[in-house]
Amino acid sequence: MKAPIVTVPIHKVADGKMAPAQDWVAAEEPLQIRLSGRDLAITMRTPGHDRELAAGFLFSEGILRSPNQIASINPDERGAIEVKLAQGVDIDTAARNFYVTSSCGVCGKASIEALHAAGCASLSAALAYIDPATVLSLPAKLHLGQRIFEHTGGLHAAGLFGADGELLELREDVGRHNAVDKLVGAAFLGNRLPLSECILMLSGRVSFELVQKAVMAGIPVIAAVGAPSSLAVETALRFGMTLVGFLRDGRFNIYAGQARLER
Amino acid sequence: MKAPIVTVPIHKVADGKMAPAQDWVAAEEPLQIRLSGRDLAITMRTPGHDRELAAGFLFSEGILRSPNQIASINPDERGAIEVKLAQGVDIDTAARNFYVTSSCGVCGKASIEALHAAGCASLSAALAYIDPATVLSLPAKLHLGQRIFEHTGGLHAAGLFGADGELLELREDVGRHNAVDKLVGAAFLGNRLPLSECILMLSGRVSFELVQKAVMAGIPVIAAVGAPSSLAVETALRFGMTLVGFLRDGRFNIYAGQARLER
Repeated sequence: MKAPIVTVPIHKVADGKMAPAQDWVAAEEPLQIRLSGRDLAITMRTPGHDRELAAGFLFSEGILRSPNQIASINPDERGAIEVKLAQGVDIDTAARNFYVTSSCGVCGKASIEALHAAGCASLSAALAYIDPATVLSLPAKLHLGQRIFEHTGGLHAAGLFGADGELLELREDVGRHNAVDKLVGAAFLGNRLPLSECILMLSGRVSFELVQKAVMAGIPVIAAVGAPSSLAVETALRFGMTLVGFLRDGRFNIYAGQARLER
Repeated sequence: MKAPIVTVPIHKVADGKMAPAQDWVAAEEPLQIRLSGRDLAITMRTPGHDRELAAGFLFSEGILRSPNQIASINPDERGAIEVKLAQGVDIDTAARNFYVTSSCGVCGKASIEALHAAGCASLSAALAYIDPATVLSLPAKLHLGQRIFEHTGGLHAAGLFGADGELLELREDVGRHNAVDKLVGAAFLGNRLPLSECILMLSGRVSFELVQKAVMAGIPVIAAVGAPSSLAVETALRFGMTLVGFLRDGRFNIYAGQARLER
């Protein structure tokens, strides 16, 4: 079984100094759920308890009603989880609503390759230098820009900043992916893509999905208040993105692309 | 335009007393994204900037490449957002991976109705009383049960507790929906559903999706460290569930079903 946490080399920035260190990040890998030999759904999950995850998903979505409907749940040779139905059990999944994801369901590496296949190029040539002091200034500016968060504590914020630390645009949403889609959509409709001179600041954690959206939009730097996942780090490394996490209390961790923060 | 935050009547519990109050919660409503007359995807979002959200989603997913491919983006008469392509533009979305959701894409009310249609019954008869002191004891027990969270800060936890506050099962994941699916899946496979005598404790915020999963599993009480969304509150009220939020520092808010906490 894959480990639920992964050790990664990072750089810590505190008190005006950058030093190499190690950190643990939560493992994130796609899991393809197959039902009766058919690809049904993909979820980005932390490895472990995959049989229970597949069973719980199928029950929660109203697809299965009783454990007796299941003949077996096992990983297949590609790493997908295969749910086989008991003899005589017939399930209709054709009439359901679906939510699109561009992730590949087999492994993280394949999810990253899918981004290459979609035409995404390395960001390493974009935005040569960012002042660490600029990065440190972002959380307060994001917070100042938020009108809703302070009332409810229930909204995620995504802010688009210039390399000089100026707030260009801010969106909030119950879903962090929606907040980023709103930012990117505004730039897309305004014909301002790629956002090669911008920093994306996030109020929460960083999953693969958010890094993927930034790569698509050509954003070379993500700075987040929360922790990144393993696949978020791998994707940032692969595409030459700078990924900053735990940006709070005057310090931060660099999970990828620390060269942009060095003179 | 619908408001991004909504006022709801709550009960605050602090210093051993329960008192009525008001709170703001983040609005959460499904948005159906339609492309060329076809239902493409549903996202649970905070209303506002829906055109940008649809455009950003279609770009991030690699479906659209240029704003010139779009003729118009407008809400249709049902409240869905309809993206019309410019003349001569042809998009192939057939070969994509999909993620299932049981939400209805038109409005929150319809999403709740869909749960009724799936056969979910009211939970109001389950678990007549819970001691507020038991609720207050849950966060420390959840934290104690977590081995991973303290290392990374990147994993969500979901814990299943008995009505007496005993931790029965704990799951962690980068996705909070996965953590709940893992819990529910274990009970499903073990033929222990419905979980009518249990409390679901969550380390983060509460979206509609999580309440939906609890309703399906027959769990009458959710207690969370974070804030619930508007649709989470509405769904809990509708199904006779007790919904506790901001459970931390020896106090909490009750968003639905406060009768269970009163003698």
